[in-house]
Amino acid sequence: MNTQVAIIGAGPSGLLLGQLLHKAGIDNIIIERQTPDYVLGRIRAGVLEQGTVDMLREAGVSARMDAEGLVHEGVELVFDGKRVPIHLTELTGGKSVMVYGQTEVTRDLMDARSASGAPIIYSASDVQLHEVKGERPYVTFEKDGERQRIDCDYIAGCDGYHGVSRKTIPAGVLTEYERVYPFGWLGLLSDTPPVNEELIYAQHARGFSLCSQRSLTRSRYYLQVPLTDKVEDWSDERFWNELKARLPQDVAARLVTGPSLEKSIAPLRSYVVEPMQYGKLFLVGDAAHIVPPTGAKGLNLAASDVCYLYRILVKVYREGRTDLLEKYSELALRRVWKGERFSWFMTNLLHDFDGEKDAWDRKMQEADREYFLNSRVGLANIAENYVGLPYEEVC
Amino acid sequence: MNTQVAIIGAGPSGLLLGQLLHKAGIDNIIIERQTPDYVLGRIRAGVLEQGTVDMLREAGVSARMDAEGLVHEGVELVFDGKRVPIHLTELTGGKSVMVYGQTEVTRDLMDARSASGAPIIYSASDVQLHEVKGERPYVTFEKDGERQRIDCDYIAGCDGYHGVSRKTIPAGVLTEYERVYPFGWLGLLSDTPPVNEELIYAQHARGFSLCSQRSLTRSRYYLQVPLTDKVEDWSDERFWNELKARLPQDVAARLVTGPSLEKSIAPLRSYVVEPMQYGKLFLVGDAAHIVPPTGAKGLNLAASDVCYLYRILVKVYREGRTDLLEKYSELALRRVWKGERFSWFMTNLLHDFDGEKDAWDRKMQEADREYFLNSRVGLANIAENYVGLPYEEVC
Repeated sequence: MNTQVAIIGAGPSGLLLGQLLHKAGIDNIIIERQTPDYVLGRIRAGVLEQGTVDMLREAGVSARMDAEGLVHEGVELVFDGKRVPIHLTELTGGKSVMVYGQTEVTRDLMDARSASGAPIIYSASDVQLHEVKGERPYVTFEKDGERQRIDCDYIAGCDGYHGVSRKTIPAGVLTEYERVYPFGWLGLLSDTPPVNEELIYAQHARGFSLCSQRSLTRSRYYLQVPLTDKVEDWSDERFWNELKARLPQDVAARLVTGPSLEKSIAPLRSYVVEPMQYGKLFLVGDAAHIVPPTGAKGLNLAASDVCYLYRILVKVYREGRTDLLEKYSELALRRVWKGERFSWFMTNLLHDFDGEKDAWDRKMQEADREYFLNSRVGLANIAENYVGLPYEEVC
Repeated sequence: MNTQVAIIGAGPSGLLLGQLLHKAGIDNIIIERQTPDYVLGRIRAGVLEQGTVDMLREAGVSARMDAEGLVHEGVELVFDGKRVPIHLTELTGGKSVMVYGQTEVTRDLMDARSASGAPIIYSASDVQLHEVKGERPYVTFEKDGERQRIDCDYIAGCDGYHGVSRKTIPAGVLTEYERVYPFGWLGLLSDTPPVNEELIYAQHARGFSLCSQRSLTRSRYYLQVPLTDKVEDWSDERFWNELKARLPQDVAARLVTGPSLEKSIAPLRSYVVEPMQYGKLFLVGDAAHIVPPTGAKGLNLAASDVCYLYRILVKVYREGRTDLLEKYSELALRRVWKGERFSWFMTNLLHDFDGEKDAWDRKMQEADREYFLNSRVGLANIAENYVGLPYEEVC
């Protein structure tokens, strides 16, 4: 097989890039290790920045999102029971976020891929990337017991942290930056109406909690838990009781509980690899960077990588601007690092770090809360990062 | 002797508090360990927040400052040679800072004290505070070989970090918070015209530098140096050459050098003690907190302590509101911690920490620079802290 761009991974980044390239007349093949059901089963983020929404519209996959997604013009922070509304739209001169689950984004993109007839190969095992530093890279994999090969101009590594793309790059080329946190998030998904119109990020002496949502009838709640906790330790009842204990009383009083559809614990982690390009291979999204979920930036940073790579590839194919390929990593990383900064800032602002912080750092954490939440400029700072910083032009 | 308020220390905080109280008809005596010349010889800050300026005006000591002080509507940051102007006035809706040396403020306050005829005792040795937890505290000291005693209602400890006031409070009452930095500032004072109309805070791979000023003919420059350096290591020539190497070329080209009037190295330090009250004793300024000088907050935080204590004492004597005395520490500390936060933020933004930071923290430092200096909201954040956050009402 031959194509212009081989895309490794059929998560939202790979699918979005594929759809955008297809619409622009650039041939691409998506290769995915898992089945479609497996991909759809991953429960992830649910808050889309304006820029991500714009990209989904540009890709022509926004009909259901525009009909069913919930535009949120604010978000609420809570500190020791005190509610601090953040009017995103007012503070950013009109911007907002869209609440629409990553699972739904993925489903819409899958449907669009099917409708387009562009090739997508699921259940491809033993995916290998070859000659990525050479003139003609190619991808091999096994499918239905047969070894297959795709020759291409470029490879987009959209296959996440555990994927083969980053691992293909030889040791010594990449620099890794990492921060781990002394806690995880226990998430619970349920078909219950959200407790609050807006998302609530709540700091509390018992630990952080987040009241998120996927739709008007489906909620996603999170609790900060020690890394040593296991999902089995948390019955639904224990989860709901603990969540109520961490929320302001009036909010807790109207919490509607119900059986969990899914429950899982994810460790929090900050991770970035530099550069995001190696020859003809471009890393996109989680393949190159992970954020703790506190700023809702994971999917949005993947979308910004897709945006930059897409715009560059269009210029490469339409105008022969191969010089721009070298700019991808720098452009993408500049926005990634700001997203990492904000995700770290929000994680720090809202979580208790137990013994991990010394007395001075705890005081600085309190001072951050005191300053940012009592100053309009401080609130505007949180708001402009939450709705998403602007993209740069690729040239 | 008898008085209403005994003030320990005749630096700017003690003198300002004394002058304000005197104008309000509240008797006070200032007791100072050193001579007036010694006090005036201390070279310190030179940037006054609007709130500090307002307090000096309220104290009636602003005539020379208003005539000779330089109103600065902006400040300049430099990162790797790239100049980033911060339009303070535009970003804060009209606020500015006043460049007027602490030495001049002190001199004006001394002159006002003399003119008022209110008592001030210099060269008082072995100052001791007594019964500060009781109903009638008193101060004893030795002057001209004689032991003297002042009975008072309240004691204001304005005698700095090394003074007797904080040390009078028994162990276990106070909680200390501290951060030290792996570098110091080498300062040079010279009768040369300032290199730039606005102050320049310059980050550079060779280390931080600051171009400050006291007047149109007197400059104050600083270089970040290792803690192991000694003043003797730094000839004037070496200082000027190093400064030029750290400034943007066009700035360095117009630097006017000259013999130093004073040269000294100060370590950078963040320090806060809580609470700032113990019975009838109130800690003010450096007696309770130290900031690294990067945010120009030292004198200004002392002035804000003075403001709160002064306003409370007026209500105590005029309206019998002794209940407010308990609020002093909380009010003062809330503003102090925000000042500490900003001073730490600016120190972190502008300095190189060598091996003290791990790779992740260095990247976060870069991301702070990238975000704050490329966002209007980020710049407004720096500006509103630099000109000074608002004071709270005392009741």
